[in-house]
Amino acid sequence: MTAESIGKLVVIGVGLIGGSFALALKRSGATARVVGVGRSRENLDAAKRGGIIDHALALDEPWSDEVADADLVLLATPVGQMPSLFAAMAPRLGAHTVLTDAGSTKCDVIAAARATLGPALARFVPGHPIAGTEHSGATAAFEALFRDKQVVLTPLAETQADALARVSACWTQCGAVVRHLDPLRHDAIFAAVSHLPHALVFALMDELAARRDANECFGLAGSGLRDFSRLASGQPEMWRDVCLANREALRGELDAYRQALGRVDALLAASDGAALLRLFERARSARADWLERTRGGDEV
Amino acid sequence: MTAESIGKLVVIGVGLIGGSFALALKRSGATARVVGVGRSRENLDAAKRGGIIDHALALDEPWSDEVADADLVLLATPVGQMPSLFAAMAPRLGAHTVLTDAGSTKCDVIAAARATLGPALARFVPGHPIAGTEHSGATAAFEALFRDKQVVLTPLAETQADALARVSACWTQCGAVVRHLDPLRHDAIFAAVSHLPHALVFALMDELAARRDANECFGLAGSGLRDFSRLASGQPEMWRDVCLANREALRGELDAYRQALGRVDALLAASDGAALLRLFERARSARADWLERTRGGDEV
Repeated sequence: MTAESIGKLVVIGVGLIGGSFALALKRSGATARVVGVGRSRENLDAAKRGGIIDHALALDEPWSDEVADADLVLLATPVGQMPSLFAAMAPRLGAHTVLTDAGSTKCDVIAAARATLGPALARFVPGHPIAGTEHSGATAAFEALFRDKQVVLTPLAETQADALARVSACWTQCGAVVRHLDPLRHDAIFAAVSHLPHALVFALMDELAARRDANECFGLAGSGLRDFSRLASGQPEMWRDVCLANREALRGELDAYRQALGRVDALLAASDGAALLRLFERARSARADWLERTRGGDEV
Repeated sequence: MTAESIGKLVVIGVGLIGGSFALALKRSGATARVVGVGRSRENLDAAKRGGIIDHALALDEPWSDEVADADLVLLATPVGQMPSLFAAMAPRLGAHTVLTDAGSTKCDVIAAARATLGPALARFVPGHPIAGTEHSGATAAFEALFRDKQVVLTPLAETQADALARVSACWTQCGAVVRHLDPLRHDAIFAAVSHLPHALVFALMDELAARRDANECFGLAGSGLRDFSRLASGQPEMWRDVCLANREALRGELDAYRQALGRVDALLAASDGAALLRLFERARSARADWLERTRGGDEV
């Protein structure tokens, strides 16, 4: 089965990720009909106006019937909402419906799926597109969001090959490059390269904003702080859920990082310019090598 | 005296900042002749080829004679080199020559100027353009770098009004907005909004790069880490000097920040999602308000 045969797509959470996925599949002709489900009627209306979805259902409406005859269901809400959504749709999922998600953490999502999906677990393909911007909601969605970006799938032992193939084909259709990874490994890596930087930036912006002279400080800050702090414009609820879902790995990263800052502080205390220079040079080389090796994904 | 009458400009350190300053003044016709002084003959040759300077002198040549008949001398080297450069040029500075600098820290530069410049101190105008990119060297220089950016001047009690006016006029000619600030206040603010973020990013990139699985981690990282880490591409020597020069203020910021991370960790340990959400929302609002209030400067 290829992406071309997604007769009916249900997207739960029509935000930046869910909306862009729907848009990419619709515009390429890979899907005939998209049903959008979400909390906010205003956002669903925007998605409909933007041609992202054909039909809209709020979560307080009887939406779960829609998954019975869907070829694909994408769950693209904050991960904290996924357990109850799995539970609500589990009894309704059609025998041929494939279910996937776009959560930034995988172990928690898989645990919730295992606890609720029953036999439908075999047709669930856990996923994480490494793409995003600092904007959110259906109005931020755009067709090219996933082009040349990586999508990590973390299939389970139970996952049926045709379900995995269908989800892979859809992401390929979006222009993405699909990779497979063990879920635990996924969560460990993203704790380091995504969840930690988000926590660092949220913490700094909150700390600066609480100062009496915050306005003067921000008034003099330049593009360095602006780029550094872009992650703080991410959706707070989404990142709250991610940080809680992956809190053990994240706490480990925070601990390692605070120790790294302690080492920087010790170099400053000792005025050890030579060691400080070596550290800065290693950091600079690491970034240069990374950008050289890969054009990177595009996750906020 | 206005910028239009800079007959001879000497730029010591023809990198991104010094080169862009020279270029902006030359292209606008504000200066007739630019002499570039620097460590690297290769960089000076590039500056000459790029039309940034008319004449080049390496630091191991007798460059200090050039400052005798200069209308303006801009010191745009890493701040750690400024004390010896002040000392070398002090006996040669012409009676009408105005001296300014572009260092990211001000108290250390002023202390060095006080210790070495003698009567020429009255014609020294300490400055800091809040502009930059992650690139360095003469080839990174461009005429518009300072357009709509802030330049902070921290004049001394001794600073002559006409010297201050000449430096202000030049920066205005570059398209910048000139502000005055107390040097101690300058260093305190930039410790928070610039030097700390740089230290944070250098520390994270070094810590990630030291891991056994660094390649896999970087290979999965997206644009979030890319933007967050842009500061780590700054010139290591420049930032080593800045961090050492402002190390007391920076260590205070590091301490406050490590405490802020401790608070985040405590919220994670307690799974306090409500408080975490409030923190993330405050951080997000702070960034949104800041970007709304100002288009920001452009410092790396």
